[in-house]
Amino acid sequence: MSFHPIDCLEVPLDKVQITDAFWLEYQRLVKEVVVPYQWLALNDQVAEAEPSHAIENFRIAAGQSDGEFYGMVFQDSDVAKWLEAVAYLLVKNPDATLEETADQVIERVAAVQQPDGYLNTYFTVKAPELRWSNLAECHELYCAGHLIEAGVAYAQATGKNRLLEVVCKLADHIAQVFGPENGQIQGYPGHPEIELALMRLYEATGERRYLDLTRYFVEQRGTQPHFYDLEYEKRGRTSHWNIHGPAWMVKDKAYSQAHLPVALQKTAIGHAVRFVYLYAGVAHLARLSQDQEKRDVCQRLWENMTQRQMYITGSIGSQSSGEAFSCDYDLPNDTAYTETCASIGLMMFANRMLQLEADSRYGDVMERALYNTVLAGMALDGKHFFYVNPLEVHPKSIQFNHIYDHVKPVRQRWFGCACCPPNIARLLASLGSYIYTRRDDGVDINLYIGSDVEIEVEGETLRLKQSGGYPWQDTVKIELEIAKPLKTTLALRLPDWCASPQLLVNGEPLELHGYVHRGYVRLTRYWQNGDVLQLTLPMPVTRVKGNPLLRHLAGKVAIQRGPLVYCLEQADNGSELHNLQLPADAPFKLIAGSGLFKGKTLLQTQGTRVNSTQALQQPLYSFNSPPAQMQPQTLTFVPYFSWANRGEGEMRVWVDEG
Amino acid sequence: MSFHPIDCLEVPLDKVQITDAFWLEYQRLVKEVVVPYQWLALNDQVAEAEPSHAIENFRIAAGQSDGEFYGMVFQDSDVAKWLEAVAYLLVKNPDATLEETADQVIERVAAVQQPDGYLNTYFTVKAPELRWSNLAECHELYCAGHLIEAGVAYAQATGKNRLLEVVCKLADHIAQVFGPENGQIQGYPGHPEIELALMRLYEATGERRYLDLTRYFVEQRGTQPHFYDLEYEKRGRTSHWNIHGPAWMVKDKAYSQAHLPVALQKTAIGHAVRFVYLYAGVAHLARLSQDQEKRDVCQRLWENMTQRQMYITGSIGSQSSGEAFSCDYDLPNDTAYTETCASIGLMMFANRMLQLEADSRYGDVMERALYNTVLAGMALDGKHFFYVNPLEVHPKSIQFNHIYDHVKPVRQRWFGCACCPPNIARLLASLGSYIYTRRDDGVDINLYIGSDVEIEVEGETLRLKQSGGYPWQDTVKIELEIAKPLKTTLALRLPDWCASPQLLVNGEPLELHGYVHRGYVRLTRYWQNGDVLQLTLPMPVTRVKGNPLLRHLAGKVAIQRGPLVYCLEQADNGSELHNLQLPADAPFKLIAGSGLFKGKTLLQTQGTRVNSTQALQQPLYSFNSPPAQMQPQTLTFVPYFSWANRGEGEMRVWVDEG
Repeated sequence: MSFHPIDCLEVPLDKVQITDAFWLEYQRLVKEVVVPYQWLALNDQVAEAEPSHAIENFRIAAGQSDGEFYGMVFQDSDVAKWLEAVAYLLVKNPDATLEETADQVIERVAAVQQPDGYLNTYFTVKAPELRWSNLAECHELYCAGHLIEAGVAYAQATGKNRLLEVVCKLADHIAQVFGPENGQIQGYPGHPEIELALMRLYEATGERRYLDLTRYFVEQRGTQPHFYDLEYEKRGRTSHWNIHGPAWMVKDKAYSQAHLPVALQKTAIGHAVRFVYLYAGVAHLARLSQDQEKRDVCQRLWENMTQRQMYITGSIGSQSSGEAFSCDYDLPNDTAYTETCASIGLMMFANRMLQLEADSRYGDVMERALYNTVLAGMALDGKHFFYVNPLEVHPKSIQFNHIYDHVKPVRQRWFGCACCPPNIARLLASLGSYIYTRRDDGVDINLYIGSDVEIEVEGETLRLKQSGGYPWQDTVKIELEIAKPLKTTLALRLPDWCASPQLLVNGEPLELHGYVHRGYVRLTRYWQNGDVLQLTLPMPVTRVKGNPLLRHLAGKVAIQRGPLVYCLEQADNGSELHNLQLPADAPFKLIAGSGLFKGKTLLQTQGTRVNSTQALQQPLYSFNSPPAQMQPQTLTFVPYFSWANRGEGEMRVWVDEG
Repeated sequence: MSFHPIDCLEVPLDKVQITDAFWLEYQRLVKEVVVPYQWLALNDQVAEAEPSHAIENFRIAAGQSDGEFYGMVFQDSDVAKWLEAVAYLLVKNPDATLEETADQVIERVAAVQQPDGYLNTYFTVKAPELRWSNLAECHELYCAGHLIEAGVAYAQATGKNRLLEVVCKLADHIAQVFGPENGQIQGYPGHPEIELALMRLYEATGERRYLDLTRYFVEQRGTQPHFYDLEYEKRGRTSHWNIHGPAWMVKDKAYSQAHLPVALQKTAIGHAVRFVYLYAGVAHLARLSQDQEKRDVCQRLWENMTQRQMYITGSIGSQSSGEAFSCDYDLPNDTAYTETCASIGLMMFANRMLQLEADSRYGDVMERALYNTVLAGMALDGKHFFYVNPLEVHPKSIQFNHIYDHVKPVRQRWFGCACCPPNIARLLASLGSYIYTRRDDGVDINLYIGSDVEIEVEGETLRLKQSGGYPWQDTVKIELEIAKPLKTTLALRLPDWCASPQLLVNGEPLELHGYVHRGYVRLTRYWQNGDVLQLTLPMPVTRVKGNPLLRHLAGKVAIQRGPLVYCLEQADNGSELHNLQLPADAPFKLIAGSGLFKGKTLLQTQGTRVNSTQALQQPLYSFNSPPAQMQPQTLTFVPYFSWANRGEGEMRVWVDEG
């Protein structure tokens, strides 16, 4: 098996060099802190962290160590995501020691592979006879998917095909086991992931059978008689998860988007991560198989998810139970689940929708998820993580009211279910592949991240040098380097939050009207070497209001500047954030942050506070009381992504307008 | 055993005749609908209701029927509460058929009693060898308590001592089994109830050992080494309830207020019903044993509960998990648990605190619980019940968001755990005993419920004839009938919601200042036959604000008139109640209700509504949008107790002030 990429619209990471200050710091953090830290965590060498045992599981399954499997049935995937992150790092940061460590892990992974290609430590150690007997609950295909992604990434990064060969053998085994023929299992995964992984494998190898297997999994999903029921009966009604009652994953088919065939699904439903992983795969399949029906399904579901069920921070999954969507316009701020992984999956889905078509609806959401929830998922120190990202936190109540059991007021060192930390690592390490979409006839610029990129267009090499101070400053400069004039299309996303974008082409203002299609300015011309685009995206402090159907946002306002959603924290504003009011016309000042916030822009304005100094002596309810005594107070807003880096305290994104 | 009441400050029910229209309708409902309906339910003869099997369990345990025990470990208590309600009914409503039915039930109960006095169908049928082995979890003393209450009530009502003798034998058995001596169990109930029941038995019989046993249970509670742990080990770590993990009731000792000795407890904590039942018993014990320390504990906990953790509707228990209190000032409106039984227990606790001392803090809460949550617990038809009484309901979200799993948008016919319906029945049937407190030197008037009462004071018979149109009308008239002039004290509660009470004594205005002590007007004089008090409690529509520490009430207002809290319902105001705003100065009109609301006063005012007609076409979030378009709308408020009698719809008590 060799590496023959086809039809890939992502720019290979070795062709993108991130250059801007904001993201270089994250690149450094991932390289110097996050990846080494997570290596220790996976080896159970972080004090005070939840144990992982994930590497040890591979040792045990390879027969290199005695002991018991420990952890989740999907513990393998943490190692796979770490390997994937390492691969992305190695592209730009050669590191012989890290590469050697990764190679050793890969050998260990390879040693766990069974002669027929099967690869999973849980079943190999605990119950080899039960493999492929519980797709609904047991994540074998999910783990395989993550290994496949790692294999593709590692081959792309290092040119070493060892892991790619292992995962191809695994994928081929899966293609033998699953399918419509007699003797095959007519099933599909309870937790989608393999779909998008197989599409990447298809892109990387050109082997059509991986696309065909993806299509099989997607089209088989949710058909009747229902596979989950059939396999449940076949295995004697045993169940792996009983959190919500016996076999609830089998019974609650919407939880894993298996209640209906994909073609008939109309709303974002069930487990949010599964949803975005599945439809990232479906969108990828739709593009590479030119399947208009699947594309329509993706658009319909995208629309429901982002226009009915998404938080302003680009997060999804409004309830803890089932880590799931709830229903249209039900977006509580404090009990939200809004998993970090779900926003990462949302970016993956968005990127694939952008590859189907440059449409700012997708780019806007991708940017919103990235700059808010995904970044909030990790502490500024790179060593603490949020799984759950609420938009309002009242730490004292979290201790006592069990509706908040899933919410942590500060980031944790690790998790028993540790999907999020390595997912952040691989996302940040691969950020270069989200900035641009490469087209036969041009380039789409989706994210304004300072970077030098080299793209093959019309057989020529086009270099773009994107610079600016995004997300803090409003001007983005894009300089072209080409060997000779080139007719092509540059498409620049106009963000939804920007009311009056301005574009200079070689210093000349361009009247955008007439050039904008689906939220992108599309400029088709003979470009010359040295051409310069200067896009100004004015970033006044912006008041955001919720749709009137969002009952949790009535009377409230959120503050955004550029792509960044801001929030109030107790550290700056005192406790009882519910007693703060933001006047409708209060002017904001930009404040240069210091200390932890060095390089970040904070926002300040004059607000008011309901006087509560006597509250403990006042009755719980008062009758015909005079209007609340208000006192002036400076309100300081910090970027949401940087909240909870100063210990435990209240936080809220949506503030009462007063 | 005979009936020798001592020190009872309640007026016997046969001496109180309720006369006012509001409560006569409830008395009729309890007699004609609720008690007969519940008899059918207890016998599993209500279609579409959860099965009860409670009567059948007694048949089985008595050897009169074959079959398996079915239901909760405390299923017996539903029968006991029904018998207690029947007893109260029979006082004023002789009904030979009903009494015969009750006598038959009592014979069946007696037939279940074991030779040593033990009485419990669950253990007798399922595991006689395990009796008294799991006090923490298994409700034997709780069921005994309810039977004792029924026995006392039935003897008082009918003069028949059959059940009283049975429960005395049971209590004597318990007194043998439990205590500090070797060979006795040094334990106490997981679910308090027997404490208040034994105090009633002591009052009814004058037998001091019942008070002593109460004291033992109260003082043993929460001591170390911990009884729950000891019995858990002794029975081999078996557990009856695993809802929140193995033996969670054993481990989470605060759940049943057993984490600390009663003397050291400082906050309302754990399961709300257990809390108020326990402290009703402790307050009763404090009074009859002149125990100042226990009285102080009760006052401290009362203060915490009512000034930090109580809803405006007189309901308690802000979370579903553990049916429990949360922490100070954490009172969410939509996810509240606020069990009907907890407000009934709150009334029982309040009544005993009033017996300790006339203080309007207790009477105000008793009234608030009664007219709002307790009444809301039952449909106007008497056949449907709420277990959970939220202050805000959005039916569509209840279907999808599991934080609302405990909330029903409409009342149910019955429950698998059916504690609430018969509790409402017995409370309403015994309402006469909450109106007055009888003192050696006078009478406290706690509730303004039209009634004729006959009270022995200073060896004389004092008749009071209370009349008025409460809770709709503001004037209460109290006429005295006495054979000869009598020096005594009449104490009238001045409700917290009333800003300017006025009192005429025989037509002459009395300057209240100087006569008010702890919220009661205390009038000590030689009263003459025919004296008339006319208390006017002006009932303007009142705006209620939450303490500034109640974060869920920021910017919101509730409407109260007299003792009644009002709410908005979708049936009158359309959906999206969150889009309605009540201007701070909007004047209200009183509206005479019709149909279901005949005889009830509704409230109307001009408010505004955020225009949402285009909302489905609008984006989820909008940037720097113009102020919301407001349109005028008539707002109609209905009494909270009568909500959800017109099918499913949105409801909210706390409305945005605009």
